[in-house]
Parts: sequence; structure tokens; C-alpha cells
Amino acid sequence: MAIAEFSPSTRNPLLPSQFSSRPPKHLYNYRLRVLRQRPQRLTHAKVFCSVAPNQVQAPVLAPPTQGTGAKKSDCFGVFCVTYDLKAEEKTNSWKSLINIAVSGAAGMISNHLLFKLASGEVFGPDQPIALKLLGSEKSFQALEGVAMELEDSLYPLLREVSIGVNPYEVFQDVEWALLIGAKPRGPGMERAGLLDINGQIFAEQGKALNTVASRNAKVIVVGNPCNTNALICLKNAPNIPAKNFHALTRLDENRAKCQLAHKAGVFYDKVSNVTIWGNHSTTQVPDFLNARISGIPAKEVINDTEWLEKEFTERVQKRGGVLIQKWGRSSAASTAVSIVDAMRSLVTPTPEGDWFSSGVYTNGNPYGIAEDIVFSMPCRSRGDGDYELVHDVVFDDFLRERIKKTEAELLAEKRCVAHLTGEGNAFCDLPEDTMLPGEQ
Amino acid sequence: MAIAEFSPSTRNPLLPSQFSSRPPKHLYNYRLRVLRQRPQRLTHAKVFCSVAPNQVQAPVLAPPTQGTGAKKSDCFGVFCVTYDLKAEEKTNSWKSLINIAVSGAAGMISNHLLFKLASGEVFGPDQPIALKLLGSEKSFQALEGVAMELEDSLYPLLREVSIGVNPYEVFQDVEWALLIGAKPRGPGMERAGLLDINGQIFAEQGKALNTVASRNAKVIVVGNPCNTNALICLKNAPNIPAKNFHALTRLDENRAKCQLAHKAGVFYDKVSNVTIWGNHSTTQVPDFLNARISGIPAKEVINDTEWLEKEFTERVQKRGGVLIQKWGRSSAASTAVSIVDAMRSLVTPTPEGDWFSSGVYTNGNPYGIAEDIVFSMPCRSRGDGDYELVHDVVFDDFLRERIKKTEAELLAEKRCVAHLTGEGNAFCDLPEDTMLPGEQ
Repeated sequence: MAIAEFSPSTRNPLLPSQFSSRPPKHLYNYRLRVLRQRPQRLTHAKVFCSVAPNQVQAPVLAPPTQGTGAKKSDCFGVFCVTYDLKAEEKTNSWKSLINIAVSGAAGMISNHLLFKLASGEVFGPDQPIALKLLGSEKSFQALEGVAMELEDSLYPLLREVSIGVNPYEVFQDVEWALLIGAKPRGPGMERAGLLDINGQIFAEQGKALNTVASRNAKVIVVGNPCNTNALICLKNAPNIPAKNFHALTRLDENRAKCQLAHKAGVFYDKVSNVTIWGNHSTTQVPDFLNARISGIPAKEVINDTEWLEKEFTERVQKRGGVLIQKWGRSSAASTAVSIVDAMRSLVTPTPEGDWFSSGVYTNGNPYGIAEDIVFSMPCRSRGDGDYELVHDVVFDDFLRERIKKTEAELLAEKRCVAHLTGEGNAFCDLPEDTMLPGEQ
Repeated sequence: MAIAEFSPSTRNPLLPSQFSSRPPKHLYNYRLRVLRQRPQRLTHAKVFCSVAPNQVQAPVLAPPTQGTGAKKSDCFGVFCVTYDLKAEEKTNSWKSLINIAVSGAAGMISNHLLFKLASGEVFGPDQPIALKLLGSEKSFQALEGVAMELEDSLYPLLREVSIGVNPYEVFQDVEWALLIGAKPRGPGMERAGLLDINGQIFAEQGKALNTVASRNAKVIVVGNPCNTNALICLKNAPNIPAKNFHALTRLDENRAKCQLAHKAGVFYDKVSNVTIWGNHSTTQVPDFLNARISGIPAKEVINDTEWLEKEFTERVQKRGGVLIQKWGRSSAASTAVSIVDAMRSLVTPTPEGDWFSSGVYTNGNPYGIAEDIVFSMPCRSRGDGDYELVHDVVFDDFLRERIKKTEAELLAEKRCVAHLTGEGNAFCDLPEDTMLPGEQ
């Protein structure tokens, strides 16, 4: 995963105007030259113009926006060319363009995710998108490489790609922010240390979203520790509804479904109603009590309490570690798939009687879980980007006890980051290392 | 890219029957144990049975097929469970399952491609698929890792995943073979050396396809040198129509379209009729003479003969090298996208007036190109998996001369591999190294 840094790029408002009538070739060469003279980087301005779809002409560069405080990230390569998107939308019966920001955009998860987004896998074949890639100074060349591969993929729905290192530029007007980038845990670093380092990143990104993103932006936090990072992010973005912030627990849910299917000897599409409760850590609770297999309670089908109470959770949690052993890398592809699933669950109606898991803000939850934390719970959506918590779930002592444990951990994590959520001095007393195997 | 090796796995026909009534957990554990005792690997047999879709029961293992000569590769994990696919197909209005083999399945290109195939991106939302992953002994654990990530992705259309190291098992009944795996060029190795080493792999795979694949299998060769590998493969598979073998030049076409769009200052969806002629090497000919931009000849729109005749081709060919410099890895994602494009071009009707490039067998071509080689040419398809060559293309001296050069190279490559195509002794006089930058 890419390291996210936040040095604002140096801008020279005079530069783009030098090129107002030059063809893209010169722009491209100039970009390369400027990149060699870092930190003086060219931020060439976004291109505005209106051309009929069949009319061919050289692009016209607009001067950079000045004095508005709203900066935009760099458009990239062929995505800087001009066309009349409104006309395209009309011709193709497309919806209006939506802006999607991805942080850690040069990392492996993003390398899968960006191409899935561009292919229409999440939003469908009538939804043009703009991808806004956030990386670090260190990863900037890699970001260019990713953008080049997106160019070469010729995805018709991918209408804009821009790259940048400043979240205040990259998050401008985004309807979705997929926050994947986080610092990996260094050797000997405790979870508390990671919480502090990454917490600062997510506090900064929360502030940036608060300032420049769409007022109803949906935010999915993937960078670990994702629940508390999501909490920090939402606390720093009071202008965006807290409900809109998600911590990704969908890969855990998918893995839990697969293990239940495997144990029951059925195909995975027969497994439903699986909740991951709580933190994305080893205290997480994959819920077999409410899970169903072909509509029948999983406990009745599997009928092996010991396996369900012990081995099931272990299998779900060890999956990432086993994968690293076998494959030598972390599970980038299936993580990206689970991000797609998480997004799709919010933009398509949830199948009747089923639900999906997401780490969301606990205020007003019907389960008696402590308020003011981000906790994975069962959700349903009408497909409008919003969701509601599911009421018809059952609890037993075993489930309640485990939920209490993961809740206690999240409350302890919250105390560790009080300095980042505006709640005073941090006090950190995390008892043990609960990072999931195979994660950083 | 994974190295493909071909040691047939050691089979013990007694092993699977020991497990005929055990649950998958034991199978899984047993698999791990056996893997540690290599080369004695368990090839547990494919599962056959018929269950109503909503009926839950433990899987029943069938004995291995014996005496038929037809072996199957190992099913994997949850994909070994039982269900009644025919009933599923009926319930979901699905087409009949198709089998797709992918070699080099543990490599980075496959890591993108397999998930695209599983998501329905190529064959659509009503086409269930089986993925058969071919790897090497060395990459076997990585193959398991890939299969685990496919399990965890819960793709409803992905009904079977099997893994193996023996092409005679993995290619059983496949309708598509995507041959990505090839040995990378070692330090100091000449193209002739690479031709020989990889030629042997593709001769073997051709023989395996000839023996066990569907009689109308479509084969796309990606491993380099892909044109001559495809020739070797088809020569070793006389039972499959030569027309069905393709060498991938679609990434070159996509890159050419992007560069033309960039130069013209238009979005890439305005560029059409771009042919890559000849070899997937530096002698390849990206054709700007027949290319169109918004329906207008590209030469009229761009009006910069020097750029078209020199820089255009350089830019297309250097793309892979620039990408490695920037991104530190080869272009796995966009290569996978181009394989999807190549497949989709064969299973969906080509848009009116347009065409796509593919390296195909030259016999009967209308352009005067030498027969009996694999040469990239413009194709159209009715969407039935087949294609025809396009007649209405124009040539000028510049284009003809360059086509002659790439044709001469392919004829020289053919002489280098005569020992692998059944045409006597090889004689190798390749004049220069024409590997594309950034490729192995």
C-alpha cells in the first residue's frame, strides 16, 4: 500500500498559459522535464471547453483557477483533451459524470480497483466516471504509470483521470472517496503507534473532504486500522453526514461466507445474512447465529458447534496470512473485489431478506452498541447510496459477549486518538496486538 | 509471468477414494499434508453429483477416471462442492458453462485477467464459467493462493476453479485457452534462444490442446515471442482449426489508438480502424494510413507526416518501457484489459465499419502476405467466436515496405523453429534483437 504524504505541490500559475496553443506532445514533454526539476512540479490546469462530439480540434488550455481557494489536481495525458461531455451523455443516454477519489492509488489494491471502476463494474454501463488518484511525492511516478495504463485501456466510461499528492486538490467535488493509502506498520511498531501515524493521515484527509468534497460524499476507509481511521476521518469532516463514512469489513464477510459454504458443502451463493460485527481486527465477530444457508439457519445446516464457535472465526481471520504464505503477496485482488461489493451494495437495492456488513457510525444503533464509534453492523440499502441498520437480528450470550469485546477494543482505540478527534488528550491502553494476520 | 513447466503430477489413484465420505475440512488438511510430501501430490478427483439447488448436503467424491486417458485437473476448495448446474442454468436463464484455461495463472497478468473473466466482463452476466489454472510445480502454492482469492470473491458466475501443472489435464474440454505463461528471457539470451525455449512449451501445449481440448477451442497466445509461439502451437494441434489461434497484438492496438487520440487532441473513443500489422516486436506496423478519427482519415486530422511516420510508432513501442521506468513493473493490468478486449471482439459483433487487430494464420489472406505464418491483421467478427479478414484496407509504399520487413522477420523466426513445427531442421539467422521495450 502506498504511503500517503501531504506536501502540497508547488504551483506556478504562469506555466500553463505558455502552452495555450501547443499540442499535447509539447505538454507531455514539458511535464517530463518539469518532473525532473522537482520539487518545481507543473500543475497544468484542467481543460475546459465545449466541442460537438464529432468535431475535431486541438485542446485549449484554461488558466489555472485563481483566488477561489479551490484547486484541482492534474489531469493526465489523453484525459486532458477536450470534448463535450454533456453531448456525449445525451448521445449515449449516460448519467451525469461522477467523481471518485482513490488514495494509495499507486498501490496494489488500487491497481485492481481502478480498472474495475473504469470498466463499469460498480456503477453500470451508463455511468461515466472521473478517477482522481491521490498518492505521495514518493509514489508520483508510479501514479503516472497507473494513469498511463488507464489511458491504454480505452475504457469508454472513464472520462477523466487526474493525479495529485494534495488531498485538498484531489478531493475537489468528489462523490466517493476510497481511502486505501495508509502507512504500513514498521518493524516493532505497536498498534497504538500505527493508530497515531495513520490517524494523522485520516484527520488530514477528513479535513480536506470537509472543505472540498461533495456535501453528500460517501467515504470508504480501507487503510488500517480502518474502523478508527474512519472515526477520525468523520470527526474531522463535520460538514459531511457521519453516516456516510464506512470502514471496509466486506472482505471479512466474503471470507466468512466462503468458509460457511465450504463447511456445509454448498456453493457460496447459497450463504446469506452473514454479519461481521465490530472491528476489522482479531476481535471481529463473524456471526454464524444469524447466518443462513439456502435460507436455513447455518447452525442447523452445519450442526457442529465447536467448529462454528472456534474454527470458523479462526479460518476467516487467518485467511490473509495463509494467502501471503502461499502467494507471497497480500490479497490485493480479493480486497479490491470486496471494495467493489461494498460500493455496489450501496448503489443497488439489497436483495429481499438479506443484508451486508459495513463498519458504520454507531449513533442510534438498535443493538445497544456504544455510540460514537465506527462498528461493523448489518445494513440494507435501497440503492440510493444510503443504508439503514437491520433490526431483525438475534443475539445469544456467546454473540453478545464477543460483541462486547470488540466494542471495548474500539472504545480503547478511540481513547488512543482523542487528540485527533478533538476530544482532548489521548490515553492509550490497548492490551494486545489484534492486527489481522497478513495485514499491515 | 510464471514459468511454465510440464512435469506431469504423480497420481495415486487410491488416494481420493479414502475420502469418499469425509467433509471438505479433511480434504483440505490432507491436501496440505500431501503437498509437503512432494512429489507425491494428491490429485483429488473432480466432484460429480446432482443436487437440487436448495438441497444442502455434503459433497460426494467420485473415483478418479481410469483407463480413458482423459485426466482432469484438481478442483479447488469451495469449487469442489456439489450442485446441480443444469438446474442453476435453468433458474437463472444462464447459458451452458464454458471452460477457460489460463496458463501462467500465478503471474501478474493472470491475477488481473482471472478476476475480469469471473466478473462476467467478457462473456456477460448470463454465462457461467469454469477457470482451469495451469502453472508450474514451482508456482503451485501461488496457484492455490490465486484460487483462494477467487473463492473469497464469491463471483456467482464462477462455478468451477481447478488448478494443475499438466496441460493434458488442465486443457480437458476447454473452449478457450489463454496462453500467458512463458519463460522470461534470461540475461544475455538472444531472441533465438527464447524462441527455442518457449517454442518447446508451446509445442507441448499445442499437443495437449490437440488431444484433450474442445475441437473448436479458441487459443490466444500472450507469452512471447507470441506470433511464432502461436504458429508452433497451431502446428502441433492439427485437430483444431488453424484459424482459431491468435497472437495478442491488442495492447499494441490500444496503445496506438491512445497515441493518435492524444496527438489529435480528441478522446480515445473517436479513434477507429487501427491495425497493427505483423509481429509483436519492434518490426510491428501500427497503421495510420487506414486509421480514422471521428470517421476522418487520421492523416487528414493530424496532418504531421513526420510524427506519423516516425514518432507515432516509437511512442507505441516504447510505452511498455516507459511504464516499467515509472511504475517499476510491467503493464499487467492493461495487458489483461487487452486480452479481455481481444476475447470480447470475438464474442460480440464488430461495430459497423470498424475492425480489430489480431495475430492470425495467414493462409488465404487477401493482402499478399506470405502464407503459413501468424501475422497481425485487421479482423471483423459476427460475435460467434470466429472472424474474417477485412478487405477494404488501402496500402501505400511506406506501409507495404514496413509490412515486408515484419513479414521477413516472422519468416526468419519460422525457420528458427522448424524443429518444433515438423518442418525439418531449424536454421536461425535473426538479424537483430526486436523484443519490445519492457517485455521479456
